[in-house]
Amino acid sequence: MATNLLKGKRGIIFGALNEESIAWKTALMAHEEGAEFVLSNAPIALRMGKIKELGEACNAEVIAADATSVEDLENLFNKASEILGGKIDFVLHSIGMSPNVRKGKTYGDLNYDWFHKTLDISAMSFHKVLQTAEKLDVMNEWGSIVALSYIAAQRSFSHYADMADAKALLESVARGYGARFAAKKVRVNTISQSPTVTTAGQGITGFDDFFNFADQLSPLGNAPSEECAKYILSLFSDYTRYVTMQNLMHDGGFSTCGITEEMMETLAKARQK
Amino acid sequence: MATNLLKGKRGIIFGALNEESIAWKTALMAHEEGAEFVLSNAPIALRMGKIKELGEACNAEVIAADATSVEDLENLFNKASEILGGKIDFVLHSIGMSPNVRKGKTYGDLNYDWFHKTLDISAMSFHKVLQTAEKLDVMNEWGSIVALSYIAAQRSFSHYADMADAKALLESVARGYGARFAAKKVRVNTISQSPTVTTAGQGITGFDDFFNFADQLSPLGNAPSEECAKYILSLFSDYTRYVTMQNLMHDGGFSTCGITEEMMETLAKARQK
Amino acid sequence: MATNLLKGKRGIIFGALNEESIAWKTALMAHEEGAEFVLSNAPIALRMGKIKELGEACNAEVIAADATSVEDLENLFNKASEILGGKIDFVLHSIGMSPNVRKGKTYGDLNYDWFHKTLDISAMSFHKVLQTAEKLDVMNEWGSIVALSYIAAQRSFSHYADMADAKALLESVARGYGARFAAKKVRVNTISQSPTVTTAGQGITGFDDFFNFADQLSPLGNAPSEECAKYILSLFSDYTRYVTMQNLMHDGGFSTCGITEEMMETLAKARQK
Amino acid sequence: MATNLLKGKRGIIFGALNEESIAWKTALMAHEEGAEFVLSNAPIALRMGKIKELGEACNAEVIAADATSVEDLENLFNKASEILGGKIDFVLHSIGMSPNVRKGKTYGDLNYDWFHKTLDISAMSFHKVLQTAEKLDVMNEWGSIVALSYIAAQRSFSHYADMADAKALLESVARGYGARFAAKKVRVNTISQSPTVTTAGQGITGFDDFFNFADQLSPLGNAPSEECAKYILSLFSDYTRYVTMQNLMHDGGFSTCGITEEMMETLAKARQK
Repeated sequence: MATNLLKGKRGIIFGALNEESIAWKTALMAHEEGAEFVLSNAPIALRMGKIKELGEACNAEVIAADATSVEDLENLFNKASEILGGKIDFVLHSIGMSPNVRKGKTYGDLNYDWFHKTLDISAMSFHKVLQTAEKLDVMNEWGSIVALSYIAAQRSFSHYADMADAKALLESVARGYGARFAAKKVRVNTISQSPTVTTAGQGITGFDDFFNFADQLSPLGNAPSEECAKYILSLFSDYTRYVTMQNLMHDGGFSTCGITEEMMETLAKARQK
Repeated sequence: MATNLLKGKRGIIFGALNEESIAWKTALMAHEEGAEFVLSNAPIALRMGKIKELGEACNAEVIAADATSVEDLENLFNKASEILGGKIDFVLHSIGMSPNVRKGKTYGDLNYDWFHKTLDISAMSFHKVLQTAEKLDVMNEWGSIVALSYIAAQRSFSHYADMADAKALLESVARGYGARFAAKKVRVNTISQSPTVTTAGQGITGFDDFFNFADQLSPLGNAPSEECAKYILSLFSDYTRYVTMQNLMHDGGFSTCGITEEMMETLAKARQK
Repeated sequence: MATNLLKGKRGIIFGALNEESIAWKTALMAHEEGAEFVLSNAPIALRMGKIKELGEACNAEVIAADATSVEDLENLFNKASEILGGKIDFVLHSIGMSPNVRKGKTYGDLNYDWFHKTLDISAMSFHKVLQTAEKLDVMNEWGSIVALSYIAAQRSFSHYADMADAKALLESVARGYGARFAAKKVRVNTISQSPTVTTAGQGITGFDDFFNFADQLSPLGNAPSEECAKYILSLFSDYTRYVTMQNLMHDGGFSTCGITEEMMETLAKARQK
Repeated sequence: MATNLLKGKRGIIFGALNEESIAWKTALMAHEEGAEFVLSNAPIALRMGKIKELGEACNAEVIAADATSVEDLENLFNKASEILGGKIDFVLHSIGMSPNVRKGKTYGDLNYDWFHKTLDISAMSFHKVLQTAEKLDVMNEWGSIVALSYIAAQRSFSHYADMADAKALLESVARGYGARFAAKKVRVNTISQSPTVTTAGQGITGFDDFFNFADQLSPLGNAPSEECAKYILSLFSDYTRYVTMQNLMHDGGFSTCGITEEMMETLAKARQK
């Protein structure tokens, strides 16, 4: 499908962990589409080593950065524009983690230090990326910055605990900073992606259940991660310059679907038991 | 519970058909709360006769009016303010019917004449009520006008066919006319009610399935019609004067709920089959 | 910018009237991107003749069709797939007209026959396009159907009168039919575009005022029609396959912007007077 | 107007600072309506002393509690149910503060320690209230918990900086915890109130400008704080039992208003300058 959609564009992609990551797939496709970029992940994630393979496949350098550290981000942005030879056109933020979810804390028994951590890692890091990028003036006009979100920001999913709040915060940051960055013609959006079979997704208890539930309530089915990567590219491209401060549903219709025939059949089955 | 919430207020209640109707329950409770009002329904519905009982129970006169006829509405408003001895404080619009749904036409096989009828009866009638009320200047300051809607206006429910569109149109009319009627300090809102076991609800194929589905996805369960009646009263009262142009969810949390434990259990059951 | 984004795709574009039309610009760009398509407009619009120029520029045939006539649409779809040599991949619906707005009727003085016409032309025509396309089975898998909307579907703009209601209905049709058409892997969306200087836009009283107002409340400024055309192409492309049943804001951030510095300055000026 | 709406109900009201506070007005009216309650505020706010007057006027005890301290909240809930002689029926959370806003930090120059503080005080405190109340099992069935929010949670207002994010987080907490607390028939909602002339509101730069702007874009005008107090009472009453997990606009129509005649006139004035 590659059509040189991102030819000449320079970017930074956060959060590629392994072949299942949306960020990983985005990197591979962005490379095919002619983009040059730097990969970044937390030092701890880098030590697991897989990302170097991706770097080689994409001809991309890998720079460690803890996205909760402004200092690390400054270093990253400076090095990235040096390596890429100019200002940045796109950034993908695919970062999220909740110690509460990881350790099985329910929403009625949150550890508040961990809640702060969830917000810091999953949402305030996005503000730090934006504020650092603006302060260093590293973004090109008509640049595009995207973060990945989930519909738990709008609707309650019990097992998602404080990650839901982090996503709501993340989307709010996109709106607030998007209004500000527009002065430099930079757009900021979030994509609200279907539940996806990734390492991050699998950490959540009951994931399979809500994966199937969402699949049955999405007229097109859950959006696969490859398709999410393509959608991200479209938002990095020049075809979407006036889309900003939006939370964009990439979910096969889940968000606007009340009930489907398929779900009716599932309910009928359960009733007969 | 009665606290004279509507003491001294005069109103018109459309759409009470039988004991199960939300409008019927609203009338009984409004009477208990000290309101005086006129009941109205289509001539055809009146002929079925039940509404007279209600009129007697509420000490309310019944005036026939086809809500798609501006002439009938003019007559109704004029007579109502005459009977009640003053301008009107509240109106409930609980009117909806789709010939396509009734006759089992799917959304992919709509009869377009009937589609027009669905819109005329279920949504444009609300505009006619509002426009006629304004033209005749029959509403008091701080009056409140409410119509009943359903979340199919935001999300697709296949069996709801063109009624979904009618509800979207109805909610749009509430916003548009609410902006206008504010000049006379009249507020206009819709309540988006849980699926309810009424005569209207039962006309829809698969109603039981989506009733149970909605119940399981509503943390408080589906809102009963008695509770809807109470909520309507709160919107007619002086406690809600600055709420206008809103679509208010009265649904036990369905609209902001992604998944519940109860639904997870249902899905597990279906899986085991 | 052309990157062969739509190479090999076949489509139908409704509503190109003159060089200012979004549909006109979409046609020119779709042609550059490798698409083949048929142009359609109402017989009355065709008689004005301009569209033939466009047809020549795009190597596209022009087929007259009144989009409120199922018969005309059947004829159009049949001829289009014959001419293009296969099933259809994309459809643009850019059709809207309100006799009430044209003739200066306010929202408090609507003519109800005209209200029906507004809905028929501007929204039910979209259902007719969808239902006809499905019945004739003319859409390819992963086809994309887009209609143009406006934020008056969510918020009141007094001069927009019943067009606001038509847009709310249009968006509802996209959701409802999108759920249905997903069975054939066809997606259906609306784009909610900034106010645009087109022939249609200019018909609305006070258009300049709300154009400037929207521009000042849009952090990126109002989205130009060229950019809307590009966005439409992205939705026709294979980069957005799992986006369906959505109303997508293409508005420079207007929809999520509360107030801007620029608007604050305007207000300060007005205050000083 | 008092109608004994809250007769027999016991509650806790957070955040009454002085006569201008919404919480202050809510307390006075709740008292008139027959409720018994405890007042609470941060120790620092209590030292300013005014709240004792309110306590006397309402026959209510005042208990100091830092709402960011779980220990303080435990103490408060325990004492409150002891004093009131039973479980709690309603809670008002009217707490918010941003050190960044106070100290004039823009959204592009946030201090991240302060950002954490903003979130802790203005939003996580609400989670702490809810979690503590549930753990101590102090809420009655059909109890109602309300927090005050602002539309900056949905739309960007530049001078609101990180308070916008805090409000988005607050609303997310209401949804998430509302889903959970429903098991005990407790409902949780936020009210999104018009900008209000209170001590908190006045701390924000440019407040007058957006107060007037909002007033002109609200068909009924900005909702006064007295009216907000009444609306809160309606949500504490038994007339709204199935409303949960909602963000309820109390804003004179601002949220669904695009433009008004009044704003058009303002713009015309500014243009003529």
